[in-house]
Amino acid sequence: MKKTQSASFKYSPKNYKKNTFKSPGREKTAEKKLRIIPLGGQEEVGRNMTIFEYGQDIVILDMGLQFPEEDMPGVDYIVPDTSYLKGKEKNIRGVILSHGHLDHIGAAPILLKELNYPPVIGRNLTLAMVKHKMEDYEKNSSKFLKNIVINSVSDKIRLGAFRAEFFDIEHSIMDAVGVVLRTPEETVIHPGDWTLEENPMDRQPLSYEKLSGLPRPTILMLESLGATETKKRPDEKEMYANLEKIIDSAEGKVIIGTFSSQIKRIGQILEYAQKTGKKVALDGYSMKMNIEIAKKLGYIKISPQTLISINDIHKYPDHQLIIICTGAQGEGNAVLSRIVNDSHHYIKIRKKDTIIFSSSVIPGNERTIQRLKDNLYRKCDNVIHTEIMNVHTSGHSTASDIQKVIKQIKPDYFLPVYANHYFLKEAVKLATNIGFPKDKIFVLDNGSVIEFDKNQATVLPKKVKTDYVFIDGLGVGDVGQVVLRDRQMLSSDGMFVITVIIDSKTKEIVGHIQVTSRGFIFVKENFDLVNATKNVVKKVIKERTSPDMSINWNYVKNNIREAVGSFLYQKTQRRPMVLPVVIEV
Amino acid sequence: MKKTQSASFKYSPKNYKKNTFKSPGREKTAEKKLRIIPLGGQEEVGRNMTIFEYGQDIVILDMGLQFPEEDMPGVDYIVPDTSYLKGKEKNIRGVILSHGHLDHIGAAPILLKELNYPPVIGRNLTLAMVKHKMEDYEKNSSKFLKNIVINSVSDKIRLGAFRAEFFDIEHSIMDAVGVVLRTPEETVIHPGDWTLEENPMDRQPLSYEKLSGLPRPTILMLESLGATETKKRPDEKEMYANLEKIIDSAEGKVIIGTFSSQIKRIGQILEYAQKTGKKVALDGYSMKMNIEIAKKLGYIKISPQTLISINDIHKYPDHQLIIICTGAQGEGNAVLSRIVNDSHHYIKIRKKDTIIFSSSVIPGNERTIQRLKDNLYRKCDNVIHTEIMNVHTSGHSTASDIQKVIKQIKPDYFLPVYANHYFLKEAVKLATNIGFPKDKIFVLDNGSVIEFDKNQATVLPKKVKTDYVFIDGLGVGDVGQVVLRDRQMLSSDGMFVITVIIDSKTKEIVGHIQVTSRGFIFVKENFDLVNATKNVVKKVIKERTSPDMSINWNYVKNNIREAVGSFLYQKTQRRPMVLPVVIEV
Repeated sequence: MKKTQSASFKYSPKNYKKNTFKSPGREKTAEKKLRIIPLGGQEEVGRNMTIFEYGQDIVILDMGLQFPEEDMPGVDYIVPDTSYLKGKEKNIRGVILSHGHLDHIGAAPILLKELNYPPVIGRNLTLAMVKHKMEDYEKNSSKFLKNIVINSVSDKIRLGAFRAEFFDIEHSIMDAVGVVLRTPEETVIHPGDWTLEENPMDRQPLSYEKLSGLPRPTILMLESLGATETKKRPDEKEMYANLEKIIDSAEGKVIIGTFSSQIKRIGQILEYAQKTGKKVALDGYSMKMNIEIAKKLGYIKISPQTLISINDIHKYPDHQLIIICTGAQGEGNAVLSRIVNDSHHYIKIRKKDTIIFSSSVIPGNERTIQRLKDNLYRKCDNVIHTEIMNVHTSGHSTASDIQKVIKQIKPDYFLPVYANHYFLKEAVKLATNIGFPKDKIFVLDNGSVIEFDKNQATVLPKKVKTDYVFIDGLGVGDVGQVVLRDRQMLSSDGMFVITVIIDSKTKEIVGHIQVTSRGFIFVKENFDLVNATKNVVKKVIKERTSPDMSINWNYVKNNIREAVGSFLYQKTQRRPMVLPVVIEV
Repeated sequence: MKKTQSASFKYSPKNYKKNTFKSPGREKTAEKKLRIIPLGGQEEVGRNMTIFEYGQDIVILDMGLQFPEEDMPGVDYIVPDTSYLKGKEKNIRGVILSHGHLDHIGAAPILLKELNYPPVIGRNLTLAMVKHKMEDYEKNSSKFLKNIVINSVSDKIRLGAFRAEFFDIEHSIMDAVGVVLRTPEETVIHPGDWTLEENPMDRQPLSYEKLSGLPRPTILMLESLGATETKKRPDEKEMYANLEKIIDSAEGKVIIGTFSSQIKRIGQILEYAQKTGKKVALDGYSMKMNIEIAKKLGYIKISPQTLISINDIHKYPDHQLIIICTGAQGEGNAVLSRIVNDSHHYIKIRKKDTIIFSSSVIPGNERTIQRLKDNLYRKCDNVIHTEIMNVHTSGHSTASDIQKVIKQIKPDYFLPVYANHYFLKEAVKLATNIGFPKDKIFVLDNGSVIEFDKNQATVLPKKVKTDYVFIDGLGVGDVGQVVLRDRQMLSSDGMFVITVIIDSKTKEIVGHIQVTSRGFIFVKENFDLVNATKNVVKKVIKERTSPDMSINWNYVKNNIREAVGSFLYQKTQRRPMVLPVVIEV
């Protein structure tokens, strides 16, 4: 972190105590009401971002990205729509990042820039990851990053009229932190993503009971992805015991596929490898980067004798090797896919190797992962995944955890957040089932505005704008619904371009009509259909033009499009995108 | 079935006994070895089809279709590749269909035609469904259907040298049947898709023990989709009790989304509705058809007072109504989606209605279903799915069921089938874990040929051809890998057509260069980029042509494609398909 010190400034608890939370912002004026506006994360998973507004002061929690749905071909990812903040940039007192996962920090490089680089508050690893993401997105942009480091959960940070405090939470990445955001009137409690580990590896189980003593009214915003999870959460200790047993007894090399964001688990495996004299190679750009960052910060202590380069694995016997890599979701170009397709430079699978999927299935990836598993089972006798053994625990809670935390914190208001709408509704049921008053629970949509005033909460009738902002290549927001609809249409039946040159005087076709088609039929094998279609075009032009009149070519083109479209549908029952190009010469 | 009697012929057990299984086929000659060749169903789910060959006699089991993967845009479905059977059509003694699900009969309309309509063997409902599918595919084609009806599991059917016998199995559709296929030497046992219901609704639990007494060697081909399912199967009786309780206590109407193939369950619900004075309306083409067929055959007995038309639901109070419909997989145009989008003519959701997802999630549909649930939760307070309550039981077995059946049948050979490769491999583990000899287990791929001879089994070194045969609109097999690759490319970054007219004498550009682009950028908002690209094209043409030389226009077009492609990538980091059209006039 040393390198960023120059660009960062820091509030220590000591500073804060001197400040004693007095400021114009503390004086309540009639207009000053707490407003909470989720810009994302209330309808789908990802692009988590919440605005807290009080008078002239704005605090933002998280800036996540969302991965595209199936009906958004070619889109790289989606970031929150910050239209609401246009013109209010100067009011943003800070952006708190709860932890370093992409659905919480991934949009930061784009949005921080858009918002004129407000200060960013987070723990060390989170901030280091943001810095790295910014550099990835735009070289040298991280020099604009204004860091406020949370050194300890006892830190208190003044952000205009807001006062931010912190608490420990459990999640599948180091340096995740829960946030208490206080206005002069209300106290918001937001753990970010969280879980409750009943049987943690190397620490005491957590309890949130002390948060019940915070000044009231308290508003609990609780990530509720686990609202329908009624099974007991797999045990972390058991998981590590299983991983260690597999590593100990493996005859060949052990290949562990996991998320690059599973920094904690990768760290644990590295330490175990060090203890048992194994060599570990990492593969996958983001995974190597994340571990590099965690090492630099001292979060992972590993000797260079243990952590070797992937190019060096041939120097060691297979049974000494552990390879941790990305691609457990079946992503086309990621490491596991390259391994299974024999296109990896250094890693060849052998029958006696062991492959572990230490990961969950992200919804939408099921079939791709099935295919990856099929191929791995062909090449290797020992493929282990969660269907077979506990080799992964989720970073999210269960239904009973949600109830437990509500009982511990005893908030005045309950706002389930950071999950699909139906999980939020199920979280409502969980709360009312333990007696939480229904009129104190609010399920917000993206863009909903909830306002707190004198112990009353109201969802305002008007939502703020929260369109999808698509990122595709270098474009931020330039791909819209029209382009996506075209891509969907092109992908399902391809396209059929008809080029016609017309003599401007005689209105007759010059030369041959040209057809350029892709994704529809294999043109070389379908000359008859193509020729018949050209005749359809000739007929339309003949009927719709005459030498003496001035021609509305858009009208003729529309006629060609319709005639060819219905002709092709009749012949093939497919609907390619028909694009007539008519040029007068 | 009466209508088809004329075109069908029938073996009764009585006929069979007279025949006493003597025929030239029974005399063993040196060449006559049993070969089993799965054409589909061994690598992915769907397009299940297996060839059994003995001398000059061929029997086929099932003709299923497979739904396309995500990388097959625009494909309607996939059928098995029957190249191996070309020229052997006259040897096909019969096609046995184990049950009426699409992954077992869906390819029949296409393949029966291709194979000159061999006789089709199945129980009533299965055959009626095939007949219906044939008519759907091609009007009047079902007159070619040659039915051999299995009236009872004691029926025995001679199919050349093969002798087919049958046994009862449990599955989620009526008239599913297990098959015993005997050659003079071997006995193949194939239950098709199956499950073991421990606590069935209205019948005795099944046991396969009597199959252990069949002539040896016996070869068990066992559908193994449940090979990693270690949880106890939800109980059928409990499921019906839950459904009935929900129906009884519902304040508004009850909407049940399920598969159109869940004929058994729909029948049960209809009967319960009749008993309790409710009205049921069905919606969804295939569901209405399937129930119509089942009613005609007498499998569902329901009065017209109970089963009402969807257009008539307004005549009854909401609390009296049950609507059973398709679309629980979130399919865009299916009934549930139309209901939730308020575009259904007759059904409007109200908050107090109840919506039940009585279905499982087909891998690949997770996100679409999540979205559907999100939208339903917004409109309705009572959405019930398997995450919340047992309202669906699968038609497939569990891991322990697989072991139970192996122990009951005690086969000499074990061939796990009809599932993804990795499930087949897991089924191998299940078998060896209960002591089954590993060298008597064979995991076949699509196209593998296994040959049995003198109690020895050999997988031949060469596989038969089993390409994907894509059905897209009217085309059978005309969409190949080239077309699919183009569709993928078009869908991810769209296309960019450049039309240039060249004066054949001067080699100069006539008029303006035209750009037609879709799915790439919104051209109207990007004039600068389009103009800059036109300049790139001009430059290439100037450099690569001169008035005096004869031009290789393909070479020039390739140059345009490359120059424009890299220019656009540099400006946008997107790679649209660039298509230059150059016309000399």
